[in-house]
Amino acid sequence: MAAIKLVIGNRNYSSWSLRAWLCLRKSGAAFTEELLPLDTPEFARRIGDLSPSRTVPVLWHGERCVWDSLAICEYINETFADGQLWPRDAGLRALGRSLVAEMHSGYGALRAAMPMNFRARQRRVPTSPALEADIARIFQRWTLARQQGAGEGPWLLGTFSIADAFFAPVAVRFGGYGVALPAGPVADYVAHLRADEAMQEWERGAAAESWIVEADEAGEETAAPE
Amino acid sequence: MAAIKLVIGNRNYSSWSLRAWLCLRKSGAAFTEELLPLDTPEFARRIGDLSPSRTVPVLWHGERCVWDSLAICEYINETFADGQLWPRDAGLRALGRSLVAEMHSGYGALRAAMPMNFRARQRRVPTSPALEADIARIFQRWTLARQQGAGEGPWLLGTFSIADAFFAPVAVRFGGYGVALPAGPVADYVAHLRADEAMQEWERGAAAESWIVEADEAGEETAAPE
Repeated sequence: MAAIKLVIGNRNYSSWSLRAWLCLRKSGAAFTEELLPLDTPEFARRIGDLSPSRTVPVLWHGERCVWDSLAICEYINETFADGQLWPRDAGLRALGRSLVAEMHSGYGALRAAMPMNFRARQRRVPTSPALEADIARIFQRWTLARQQGAGEGPWLLGTFSIADAFFAPVAVRFGGYGVALPAGPVADYVAHLRADEAMQEWERGAAAESWIVEADEAGEETAAPE
Repeated sequence: MAAIKLVIGNRNYSSWSLRAWLCLRKSGAAFTEELLPLDTPEFARRIGDLSPSRTVPVLWHGERCVWDSLAICEYINETFADGQLWPRDAGLRALGRSLVAEMHSGYGALRAAMPMNFRARQRRVPTSPALEADIARIFQRWTLARQQGAGEGPWLLGTFSIADAFFAPVAVRFGGYGVALPAGPVADYVAHLRADEAMQEWERGAAAESWIVEADEAGEETAAPE
């Protein structure tokens, strides 16, 4: 079987890497990782050989290269997970793809104002109507998904899916920036996600990474490129 | 069988609508359309009832609602096209998904500087390093795809796929804004795409739409929301 290698950025900062990694871990496939620290000479030196888009994550499966987190997750689902990373029900799967596509290209205010940082604790950032709208939309989407998928299990669409991988960094952001979660489906879902074994494994890795000096612990850290 | 309805924006401007519509047309499924003209009171009045994201396109299949062009195309592929809208070869399919994901969330300079407009003729816009880089990347991606898919047919990955739908608006942009196409695979591909029967049908529809007053035919038209 062809070797599988996932190239990722810093666990603490690289939200897109987390998405692909979670899907690969949940698939059960054996794989190796290569970590390229973001914004370093090493990254600049290596990325051109590893990634056509010069971004992480990027997946290598033998000689085959797949880039962009969404394409990687769909590939993992088809190739290593026998389709189990989307719900079997066509309606739930469609809902999941709609939510994931929105996350893939949208929520710009949330992504800019609250870059993922596992080490952030009750960090505060200025709010804005756009940020508030993004957060409200996330809550609405998660509530909708949990209403439809609740009978199948505790994940967003019942069973673990690419949608959980795509929203995992959002759950981390809400924790680090002190976003109050509505009690009920939203808070329950975040608690389930954060307690997951694979999420815990990634979080331990993030904690063990060498700390980048953060000039302003109040939240002015520059967003790491995703 | 549940009714299929695709809600679209103006054919002349709505590049994301074109993407979903092309996939649905190529699937062979019978469907109805509802056109909501962008930036109109009618759009504002109707969109809330039709689309959870308040954007077009949106697909209704019976009571099921799918939004975001990429999710819609994947749904059409699975539900109405028996998987034929991606190549059967896993490597080509992975390449297609990488290219489509990039288009879905990227090429911001190209999208901002050259909004899709079927009626544009040799329109000129100021260039920029970011715009030039986007165009060069498109050419590189198309050349790569045609190298790998050429044995299978004249579309980007050989047979028609979601990748063709995603790049169709780019081909239209290149025509309207006078972007010089490299002879060979790139120019041949664009010629094939533009001559396609379904593309021609959409283009006739765009030409028949009531013209929005375009204040500055030199290219300062505001980008229509996609």
